[in-house]
Amino acid sequence: MFELKEDERLDYLLAEELRIIQSPSVFSFSLDAVMLARFASVPKTRGSIVDLCSGNGVVPLLMSARTSVPMIGVEIQERLYDMAVRSVLYNGLHMQIQMVNDDLKKAPERLGKEKHTLVTCNPPYFLTPSTNEMNVNEHLAIARHEIMCTLEDCILSSSQLLKQGGKAAFVHRPGRLVDIVALMRKYRIEPKRIRFVYPKAGNKEANTVLVEGIKDGAPDLKILPPLYVYNEKGEYTDEVRTLLYGDEPPFLRR
Amino acid sequence: MFELKEDERLDYLLAEELRIIQSPSVFSFSLDAVMLARFASVPKTRGSIVDLCSGNGVVPLLMSARTSVPMIGVEIQERLYDMAVRSVLYNGLHMQIQMVNDDLKKAPERLGKEKHTLVTCNPPYFLTPSTNEMNVNEHLAIARHEIMCTLEDCILSSSQLLKQGGKAAFVHRPGRLVDIVALMRKYRIEPKRIRFVYPKAGNKEANTVLVEGIKDGAPDLKILPPLYVYNEKGEYTDEVRTLLYGDEPPFLRR
Repeated sequence: MFELKEDERLDYLLAEELRIIQSPSVFSFSLDAVMLARFASVPKTRGSIVDLCSGNGVVPLLMSARTSVPMIGVEIQERLYDMAVRSVLYNGLHMQIQMVNDDLKKAPERLGKEKHTLVTCNPPYFLTPSTNEMNVNEHLAIARHEIMCTLEDCILSSSQLLKQGGKAAFVHRPGRLVDIVALMRKYRIEPKRIRFVYPKAGNKEANTVLVEGIKDGAPDLKILPPLYVYNEKGEYTDEVRTLLYGDEPPFLRR
Repeated sequence: MFELKEDERLDYLLAEELRIIQSPSVFSFSLDAVMLARFASVPKTRGSIVDLCSGNGVVPLLMSARTSVPMIGVEIQERLYDMAVRSVLYNGLHMQIQMVNDDLKKAPERLGKEKHTLVTCNPPYFLTPSTNEMNVNEHLAIARHEIMCTLEDCILSSSQLLKQGGKAAFVHRPGRLVDIVALMRKYRIEPKRIRFVYPKAGNKEANTVLVEGIKDGAPDLKILPPLYVYNEKGEYTDEVRTLLYGDEPPFLRR
């Protein structure tokens, strides 16, 4: 049942005592996915979670350490979906995490509209460039560029999947922040919590943004403290180390 | 020609070797106005600047240290306008700064449409509450609540005043960020630079946001490093001290 294909590796998934299948030529998870899984307001025992643009399933795998609710990962690329399915099986999480190989635009129809408690999504960050600028590796190109779905598709599907009061959490580049919050509001997901991620303290601009909103929520946005990735020695900060290697991180305590 | 009225004081205006008339019962400038004056991309020698919701004229007075271009402050409250006029005169800046006692909604008609290089605005932060919750002091109530103008009025007027490529800089509460960026885009001011102000480093949320956009600019938002007001001893940080007491602050160097 379980096998590694081509250049796949079975990597340790942080402190969660989980393993995950990755491949440098197909898909490897990023710190952004880890931050998203930690940032999202994960329901502990009730409800259901959908992860869009799920890739090799890293976000639901990570969240499984913090929740017992059923999770569904949606991934359009068959090759990545297949990696995710095998990682879920390897970790014995197939009763909790179901992977679906489909277009996220069809997810609300297939997984139920106005039904879910949380949607997470780490979408492709880059607009579709001309073909000669794009990554020649099709798997990486689809994961990184808006080829199969746009930001608007992701936010629309998220909204359709969520019940009233349900939450949607996204990670993206700060350059798209205005688009993100405008589209969230357009599709009735009111932005409630934003956290900016900076490479380090000092005079650097933020390079990542985490945004969470509530379906049909009232306007009341909080800007959380900045998250710094590296300290002045170029090592991970204590907070990122905790995100990556365990312990409930301080910014999730409420 | 120059006199102080009622409980007015002639205060030192920071490191600019300027003086400003203030009154605890009518209007005193805040750190937010200082941050706005420093944050805005001030044209040095060409163009013109309009400051909306100008109060006692603190923002143009501060900017006068960095620019030789003509500035116009618009203030609807006659009592505050009068304070601003006397401060401008006292500092001998009446050739550079003109105060106008009018509704900002009439400013584009009166001061010229599609004409100015920079608009700054430190608008009232609070929605209009029921009369019994509102500040009973009419001057302070008008400065703090959306009684005479809404955020949308401010942004619409700013856009009408600005020529293509002109900039608008606002300071507000982070809770209104989604409204601000959505309204800016609605009125063709593309948000380009955002800086969040936190009371101190650590686990506090931001309590102020500085936003600058460009009329008809292309989407490309930068999130600048956080600005912390107090250090762990409860004193102003070096950066805020510099903002308040002089020297070009680091976040304005480009």
